[in-house]
Amino acid sequence: MNIEELNSFVDKEFPQVRGEFTIEDLGEMRIRTRMAVTERHLRPGGTVSGPSIFALADVSVYLVVLAMLGPKGLAVTTSSSMDFMRKPAAGQDLIAECRLLKLGRVLAVGEVLVFSGNDDRPVARASMTYSIPPKT
Amino acid sequence: MNIEELNSFVDKEFPQVRGEFTIEDLGEMRIRTRMAVTERHLRPGGTVSGPSIFALADVSVYLVVLAMLGPKGLAVTTSSSMDFMRKPAAGQDLIAECRLLKLGRVLAVGEVLVFSGNDDRPVARASMTYSIPPKT
Amino acid sequence: MNIEELNSFVDKEFPQVRGEFTIEDLGEMRIRTRMAVTERHLRPGGTVSGPSIFALADVSVYLVVLAMLGPKGLAVTTSSSMDFMRKPAAGQDLIAECRLLKLGRVLAVGEVLVFSGNDDRPVARASMTYSIPPKT
Amino acid sequence: MNIEELNSFVDKEFPQVRGEFTIEDLGEMRIRTRMAVTERHLRPGGTVSGPSIFALADVSVYLVVLAMLGPKGLAVTTSSSMDFMRKPAAGQDLIAECRLLKLGRVLAVGEVLVFSGNDDRPVARASMTYSIPPKT
Repeated sequence: MNIEELNSFVDKEFPQVRGEFTIEDLGEMRIRTRMAVTERHLRPGGTVSGPSIFALADVSVYLVVLAMLGPKGLAVTTSSSMDFMRKPAAGQDLIAECRLLKLGRVLAVGEVLVFSGNDDRPVARASMTYSIPPKT
Repeated sequence: MNIEELNSFVDKEFPQVRGEFTIEDLGEMRIRTRMAVTERHLRPGGTVSGPSIFALADVSVYLVVLAMLGPKGLAVTTSSSMDFMRKPAAGQDLIAECRLLKLGRVLAVGEVLVFSGNDDRPVARASMTYSIPPKT
Repeated sequence: MNIEELNSFVDKEFPQVRGEFTIEDLGEMRIRTRMAVTERHLRPGGTVSGPSIFALADVSVYLVVLAMLGPKGLAVTTSSSMDFMRKPAAGQDLIAECRLLKLGRVLAVGEVLVFSGNDDRPVARASMTYSIPPKT
Repeated sequence: MNIEELNSFVDKEFPQVRGEFTIEDLGEMRIRTRMAVTERHLRPGGTVSGPSIFALADVSVYLVVLAMLGPKGLAVTTSSSMDFMRKPAAGQDLIAECRLLKLGRVLAVGEVLVFSGNDDRPVARASMTYSIPPKT
């Protein structure tokens, strides 16, 4: 799947997040995804909530697996770890740079760095393991 | 802080999640929190999304730290890990059983099991590390 | 497999750790394992090294999976997370209390609390995911 | 500290691992460390054990923190996560490519990719959080 197909897939299959996530770049085993930060992602103090950052990392790994395998069965997250390292800037989108480290028959493993606006110091890192459904 | 004070704190400080999380039980270093599952937590297929389960685990550790230390500075998540083990049942609330394993001067560590409705097999487990702000 | 069979299996299959790990208790989906702490587990300052604590947690999950499934194919660790919360006491054995939270067809997930001697405050917690080889 | 000073520090402070770990490259916020794989790192089947891979990742983050801050107080691991993705080749050294993502006043976060010999597909990934002792 290419960027247009992936963006269409997201809009169609996840209507509740329409406009929230945009795929900016897509390559062999990697993806860059942008999250439009709005009021509902914020915590007191104006910072982006942890669950919102988790959602961005999670969807990024999901989408790059989807791009590599095609929309057959739906992969599901089995394990994840995240470190929250810096406070995202208020009023800035979040950008996830994601790379698949493994795309096996049963499991896929991706790592993600999350950036706030144009700051090149990551606000968070994540690793996610997805279970790939058996071929039918 | 007791249950009523904590529930009031959540309603006042996190108006965007009012009605979403309810503290059901609170003890020394432990808490039980319920998440009312609604349409916006769901993924295609009727299952509860990973970020929603993450949010429940995260808020549970946050609240038990708050209950133990009082509402002075705001603790922030620094590290987390989660395993997603079973598909939550459709139309069931999620319940988090959370225990603080450490409440140090600088870091607090909590572990969480998340259950779907009355099923006694956990749908997810989480561990969360919070950084505690220095006294001022 | 029962305790004697498991202890024999460890002695036979892992001769390099003979005498290091002892299974103290074994039940449905749970195990208690003891690590005899010796000079080679120590770090400067007399504390037990992180990799040694990791090894105890890892072997505990491995053994309870083995006890439940029998010695067919060898399960392998795919993901792990650990939090190190307190400094183990010098000259004390480490004890791992391990519970399987999931024993699926493809993946098993265990959680472990590690204690130092008789202190009831855990020195570390771990969660481990094992991949179970397909039946042949 | 430069490479020679770091290698000397390891030999002096960790005599039990002398010859096991060698620093191959050191830069701003990054390090490459080699582990000489010997009989005692192996598991049945000839593969390198998980605790040995953990030890390599852990020491790599420790050393780059040390190189950046100097040998004052000793940093300690507080949290870690690892994914084991491929079986290391028998008879090959392991190489860790490690990068510090954060070096704060209280916490440092590093990420590590572990390679087996010259294969450019990582056998494991790790993230490690170290607690930095307060200045005295």
